[in-house]
Amino acid sequence: MMYNLLKGKKGIIFGALDSKSIAWKVAERAHEEGAKFVLTNAPVALRLGTISELAEKTGSIVIPADATSMMDLEELVDKAVEELGGKIDFVLHSIGMSVNVRRGNHYTHQDYNFTKTGWDVSALSFHRLMSVLYKKDAMNEWGSIVALTYMAAQRVFPDYNDMADNKAYLESVARSFGYFFGRDKKVRVNTISQSPTPTTAGNGVKGFDGFIAYAEKMSPLGNATALECADYTISLFSDLTKKVTLQNLFHDGGFSNMGVSTAIMDSFMENYKEETIDEPKKKDKK
Amino acid sequence: MMYNLLKGKKGIIFGALDSKSIAWKVAERAHEEGAKFVLTNAPVALRLGTISELAEKTGSIVIPADATSMMDLEELVDKAVEELGGKIDFVLHSIGMSVNVRRGNHYTHQDYNFTKTGWDVSALSFHRLMSVLYKKDAMNEWGSIVALTYMAAQRVFPDYNDMADNKAYLESVARSFGYFFGRDKKVRVNTISQSPTPTTAGNGVKGFDGFIAYAEKMSPLGNATALECADYTISLFSDLTKKVTLQNLFHDGGFSNMGVSTAIMDSFMENYKEETIDEPKKKDKK
Amino acid sequence: MMYNLLKGKKGIIFGALDSKSIAWKVAERAHEEGAKFVLTNAPVALRLGTISELAEKTGSIVIPADATSMMDLEELVDKAVEELGGKIDFVLHSIGMSVNVRRGNHYTHQDYNFTKTGWDVSALSFHRLMSVLYKKDAMNEWGSIVALTYMAAQRVFPDYNDMADNKAYLESVARSFGYFFGRDKKVRVNTISQSPTPTTAGNGVKGFDGFIAYAEKMSPLGNATALECADYTISLFSDLTKKVTLQNLFHDGGFSNMGVSTAIMDSFMENYKEETIDEPKKKDKK
Amino acid sequence: MMYNLLKGKKGIIFGALDSKSIAWKVAERAHEEGAKFVLTNAPVALRLGTISELAEKTGSIVIPADATSMMDLEELVDKAVEELGGKIDFVLHSIGMSVNVRRGNHYTHQDYNFTKTGWDVSALSFHRLMSVLYKKDAMNEWGSIVALTYMAAQRVFPDYNDMADNKAYLESVARSFGYFFGRDKKVRVNTISQSPTPTTAGNGVKGFDGFIAYAEKMSPLGNATALECADYTISLFSDLTKKVTLQNLFHDGGFSNMGVSTAIMDSFMENYKEETIDEPKKKDKK
Repeated sequence: MMYNLLKGKKGIIFGALDSKSIAWKVAERAHEEGAKFVLTNAPVALRLGTISELAEKTGSIVIPADATSMMDLEELVDKAVEELGGKIDFVLHSIGMSVNVRRGNHYTHQDYNFTKTGWDVSALSFHRLMSVLYKKDAMNEWGSIVALTYMAAQRVFPDYNDMADNKAYLESVARSFGYFFGRDKKVRVNTISQSPTPTTAGNGVKGFDGFIAYAEKMSPLGNATALECADYTISLFSDLTKKVTLQNLFHDGGFSNMGVSTAIMDSFMENYKEETIDEPKKKDKK
Repeated sequence: MMYNLLKGKKGIIFGALDSKSIAWKVAERAHEEGAKFVLTNAPVALRLGTISELAEKTGSIVIPADATSMMDLEELVDKAVEELGGKIDFVLHSIGMSVNVRRGNHYTHQDYNFTKTGWDVSALSFHRLMSVLYKKDAMNEWGSIVALTYMAAQRVFPDYNDMADNKAYLESVARSFGYFFGRDKKVRVNTISQSPTPTTAGNGVKGFDGFIAYAEKMSPLGNATALECADYTISLFSDLTKKVTLQNLFHDGGFSNMGVSTAIMDSFMENYKEETIDEPKKKDKK
Repeated sequence: MMYNLLKGKKGIIFGALDSKSIAWKVAERAHEEGAKFVLTNAPVALRLGTISELAEKTGSIVIPADATSMMDLEELVDKAVEELGGKIDFVLHSIGMSVNVRRGNHYTHQDYNFTKTGWDVSALSFHRLMSVLYKKDAMNEWGSIVALTYMAAQRVFPDYNDMADNKAYLESVARSFGYFFGRDKKVRVNTISQSPTPTTAGNGVKGFDGFIAYAEKMSPLGNATALECADYTISLFSDLTKKVTLQNLFHDGGFSNMGVSTAIMDSFMENYKEETIDEPKKKDKK
Repeated sequence: MMYNLLKGKKGIIFGALDSKSIAWKVAERAHEEGAKFVLTNAPVALRLGTISELAEKTGSIVIPADATSMMDLEELVDKAVEELGGKIDFVLHSIGMSVNVRRGNHYTHQDYNFTKTGWDVSALSFHRLMSVLYKKDAMNEWGSIVALTYMAAQRVFPDYNDMADNKAYLESVARSFGYFFGRDKKVRVNTISQSPTPTTAGNGVKGFDGFIAYAEKMSPLGNATALECADYTISLFSDLTKKVTLQNLFHDGGFSNMGVSTAIMDSFMENYKEETIDEPKKKDKK
């Protein structure tokens, strides 16, 4: 697909770890659509991933930045404006990490130092980033800022742990800062609430493939892929969506508005009937 | 703007009365983006409006259809498929009318025959339309159906009258039918909840220009125009949004997520201070 | 339980068919809490049910009323005020019926005459009722009006059919009329969105017992019973909730804010693993 | 009002600073309804406020606890169980503080050390508290935990600053932890989203009295008072609401579902007409 939707636009893309990353697909699609951008990631993610490959492919430079460091973010924005030859039109925030999840702490038994780190990296980083862009007046009018989020911010997914609360904070920051960015700079700020996606980060979560299968069966159109998410993100960076702001936009094949699908209900009923039939037997054993 | 976003796509557009109509702008933009479509409206609206001008400009035919008549809708879909040479990729439902509003009945004092007519025209028509498209298998896979709505479906706007309830029904139909259309036909169904827009229809509402000024001051990016709504609608018809379904999408410069803006608060405080200052004087007079 | 929460309060209770009805439990609990009230139902429901037993038990009279008839509603309100010796403090609307469901019409293949009847009975009736109460100035200040609803108004439950859209309309009426009733009469209007409940009406729905089992497993506290719903309704009729209005209140053991529970996920995984293990076998057979 | 709604119930109440505090009113009402409880607050708040007066009046002891200290919370819960002679039935979390607000930092120009402190005190404290109660198995079955919040978690109120994001996190914690507390201990967890209330804490916010007047005019029933909030909280602690959980409950006279009221629109139109009339004059002057 190539429509020149981002022709002449300049951006910053956070969070492209490897070719499974949504941010990676966004970079590829933004490149196809005529954008120029810089790629950035935390130094540790740069070492683990394969971002240089993406940089080469898209003619981009990579600027390391720890999103919890104001100094790093300030340097990043300065360099990006310099490198791209002007103010920024679009930004993607695709950063999330829970130390509690990594260390296997249950939601009810968190280590609050880990909780703070996860919140700082996953949620407060979005405020920091916008604060730097706002103070430096680094965004063009009618620019677009997008952060990726997940529906655990609204509804309970027990294994999503403290990332649920981090995403709720992130979405609130999008609204709160989006007001000032809109009013003062004519910049829109939105979050995309994406289907569970089999990225390298996501795969670390316990039972993630089962959950993806569940979401697939619940969603009338099935799960949204990373590439589809990139397409949607492009539409939000383009001039087609200038007056969409402060929104949390579900990109999930319809999951978010499902109570239950016939497919999930059918699956449930298989076990339910067995249980109902089995029960007398169990009683007999007593 | 021209990106070829709808190249080769075929559509049906309801509700283009005159050049102020959102549907009119959608038709113009869809034409620019390479789509072929038929225009349709109720016979009475065809007489009142200037749709033939739009038809000429976009190389479209006009097929009259009363959206409360299954026979009309069936003929419309049959003719559209024949005229366009294949199944439909996108449909815009932009139909709404309250007899109670027209006749000046207050919300609390409705004439229920008028209520029924308004509901049938504004809300049930969307079910009828999708039912015909679904039964005739007239939509291509990954097609897109969009209806226009307004935030009165979620929150109280006292002058919006029974249209608030009609829009709530319409949005529910989008979800309910969207599930089956997604699961069975891979077609997405969404509603766009648009800023108050100075169309010929809207202008009939009492105090509408004042309300538009209010919404303008409340929204961080100001109100969305009819043309901007058309751009957004194009993005929802395009292949960039294939997995967005069952959603009610606010296109309103951010109004929907505002509690209060500084501009509205400042305006309120002007009167509030005067009231507070005036009060002692008033007391003195007694 | 007896707290005298409704001591001296007067009410009208719609929809007590038999002892499984939520409205029946509300009447019993309201009686325990010291209220006086009249019972009402459609003539046909009066014949089918056992309401006279309830009337005797609670010292109430029964006034037949078709909730789609303004004349019936006006007579009902007049008689109720007379019988109870003063204005009304609380009203329960527990009325719902889909002819399409009864006749087995699929959501996508409705008979629109049935749709209209179902909408009129289930949704518009709430407007009619409030309109009569409002025009006759029949409610005391700080009175409370409650209607029962279901989450299908927000999310898709495929078998709920056109009742989903009717409930969305009903909830909108609660907001729209609630504004005027609050502003002009200091009366609050809310809806309770209750767990699926094994009433005589509910049991008619296909696969309803399986769905109840599903909701039970999804809800952290399990499904809310009819009696628990009555308790909650009492709290909304009492003076403890004077400033709660225009709200749709979920009374469902937490279902409404669940993405997925561990219990449902475990049930899903049982089948999922079997499918995954079975797949190679299936392939072998080809 | 006295109904014996909390007869025999034991509780912990956080956040009663002085007689304007919502928590203070909750304590008074809980006492009237027959509950026994311990009062707690941060040591600094104990010095500033007049809690000993409340303790005497309600026959309660005061246990100081910094809600960001696990050690303090553990001691508090141990002592409370000991003092009250058994497990806890209800808990009120009414804790919130933004250092950025106090120091006059604009939302866009936060000091992130202050942001962290505010988040820890206002939001993470709720997780800490529930974690201690959960691990110690200190809650009785069918107990009730309530935290106070504000609608800035959903919608933009520009002066609410980082408290908006803190409240969004708090509400998410209520859902996330509420799932486990419900599933494992049969305890419900909800938040009450209260009208702006003229407490000692609230009065520190710039332009707060003007905002209270605005909310009063927007809400069909006017703002909810601290005492009314206490009544509502009692209903959530009582056995009438056993199956309400994971909910954010608006107690605000209807504000949350208002688009605009006629009173606010009228106030806006006064200025709007003046502006419109003044404009030609302004032009004349040029």
